[in-house]
Amino acid sequence: MQTNECVIGIDIGGTTTSFGFVDRHGTLIREDTLATLAHQPADALVARLYDAIEKRRTTLPPQTRLSGIGIGAPNASYLRGTVENPVNLNWGASTNLVELFRQRYDLPVAITNDANAAAIGELLFGGAHGMKHVIVITLGTGLGSGIIVNGELLYGADGFAGELGHTTVDPEGRCCACGKQGCLETYVSATGLCRTVTELLAQRLDPSPLREVSSTVLTSKLIYETARDGDPLALAAFDTTARILGMKLADAVAHTSPEAIFLSGGLAAAGDLLLAPTRRYLEEFLFTPYKGKLKLLPSGLPEGSGAVLGAAALAWHEFDKTSATPP
Amino acid sequence: MQTNECVIGIDIGGTTTSFGFVDRHGTLIREDTLATLAHQPADALVARLYDAIEKRRTTLPPQTRLSGIGIGAPNASYLRGTVENPVNLNWGASTNLVELFRQRYDLPVAITNDANAAAIGELLFGGAHGMKHVIVITLGTGLGSGIIVNGELLYGADGFAGELGHTTVDPEGRCCACGKQGCLETYVSATGLCRTVTELLAQRLDPSPLREVSSTVLTSKLIYETARDGDPLALAAFDTTARILGMKLADAVAHTSPEAIFLSGGLAAAGDLLLAPTRRYLEEFLFTPYKGKLKLLPSGLPEGSGAVLGAAALAWHEFDKTSATPP
Repeated sequence: MQTNECVIGIDIGGTTTSFGFVDRHGTLIREDTLATLAHQPADALVARLYDAIEKRRTTLPPQTRLSGIGIGAPNASYLRGTVENPVNLNWGASTNLVELFRQRYDLPVAITNDANAAAIGELLFGGAHGMKHVIVITLGTGLGSGIIVNGELLYGADGFAGELGHTTVDPEGRCCACGKQGCLETYVSATGLCRTVTELLAQRLDPSPLREVSSTVLTSKLIYETARDGDPLALAAFDTTARILGMKLADAVAHTSPEAIFLSGGLAAAGDLLLAPTRRYLEEFLFTPYKGKLKLLPSGLPEGSGAVLGAAALAWHEFDKTSATPP
Repeated sequence: MQTNECVIGIDIGGTTTSFGFVDRHGTLIREDTLATLAHQPADALVARLYDAIEKRRTTLPPQTRLSGIGIGAPNASYLRGTVENPVNLNWGASTNLVELFRQRYDLPVAITNDANAAAIGELLFGGAHGMKHVIVITLGTGLGSGIIVNGELLYGADGFAGELGHTTVDPEGRCCACGKQGCLETYVSATGLCRTVTELLAQRLDPSPLREVSSTVLTSKLIYETARDGDPLALAAFDTTARILGMKLADAVAHTSPEAIFLSGGLAAAGDLLLAPTRRYLEEFLFTPYKGKLKLLPSGLPEGSGAVLGAAALAWHEFDKTSATPP
């Protein structure tokens, strides 16, 4: 009976929105993307998404049954079903996206922020399979995090638990877009890495190809390629990033004591340039009882479809929780 | 049937061990203390505790039924039932204290570390009653913490979650007894406050009664009294402590997002000298979505008996979990 069952996973980004039909094993059966058109209201996106989904749906194997819809979106509240004050979408203070989808589908709909979706995706379909206590860090323009405790996403009192990107590295440190100073994501993220390079260019005297590039043109990809070519300054930027990340991950372990931490997202694709030194610094900063036990791993989800798989995993996880409720 | 039911709560410290018979409402019916005699092996303490408990037990109202035993102890592992490498007890690498008590009592026995016991005590009998997401910080010689998530103590992968005292404030900061540098408890604790005063004596030029006192004689109590008398240097020490505590509590909120944080233990008794500035700094360091929602409160448990009540709360909590299991 489960053979032809699947869910729809939807990942809403500032530029692109992706969706896919995903079975219980995490296989992406059909997928598609569309432009988010962030200046338009939310219901316009939902209407276009509905059309695109229904169009792809006709290509599914016959008798495929839909069991639910999972959505990953920035600033999403799982508890309220809303997207609240999204920075990159012109949607206003609060949009009940769950409600908008329920008007079109008689299916359970759940929403969570993109980092939480990545975490539940890692738990169901990725490297965290079978684990109970996990932290997933998404490294992109910013730093997102999802925390799994006892096999469940941790939401806390108000649904916004797990915002490690805005823990403080240095109270007199870099200005953050959130209004605070010295937040982790101002150091550890694609933009944080660029800021570190700019800082090192001022501090150091050694030549580097990165001195030829203006701040506005500098990207984490360019820093990665320059580091891979052996440039000491670019390598130092990765080392600085890894040290700060290692220190703050050790703090995170002292909170929830996971068995593994996963790094996903664009910057995590730098692989051992970031992972190896972070592992070393993390171990150094760990409180003794945690030493030698923790795994720091790259995401086990395929890079391009991790976000859609995460949203689909949320749908499956909700479906299983509902089904498990005693009659 | 519940009227004459109670549990035994035991708090094992480096110097003194306390126990009490506690009913379901958190009333301490009988209590007593004995010297821990930390140089003796664990089973000697258990034997003396057994005698003392049985002696007090004869004074209980007739037909009182014992439902369980809860123990709070340093370096205790809830998952293994052990006390492991306790710094202030000559007990060796690992002592299965749960087993030692089960040899004498045919009752459920549970153990956890003292800060976790304080947290579950706050949840059942203190200010956190009815809450689901809570952090309890114990401020004594060190800084302990217990984290409640979804109404349960958070143990994490290995039973040692919630060690906020060893998160990092400054990687180049004060040496910690744990071997790391800049741990939170080297700043925020009774000893941390003394170190801050010593640092301020070196930094500042203003006169202070604390200049008459040597480092070995200095205590947090003396600093408290001096601050209460209006001494600017002592007040500055509290302000420094509050700022660091506020910053790291904001980090803690970004992990588990509790509805309230409770401060308990000796230093927390400094009351508004610590609580008021910590509240201000915490609010300042909070990431925007958390602002204006969080309660920072003093423990709602009576100061002298909080530890025994916490251990008893652990026993009641375990009892209720077992009883709630469907047949």
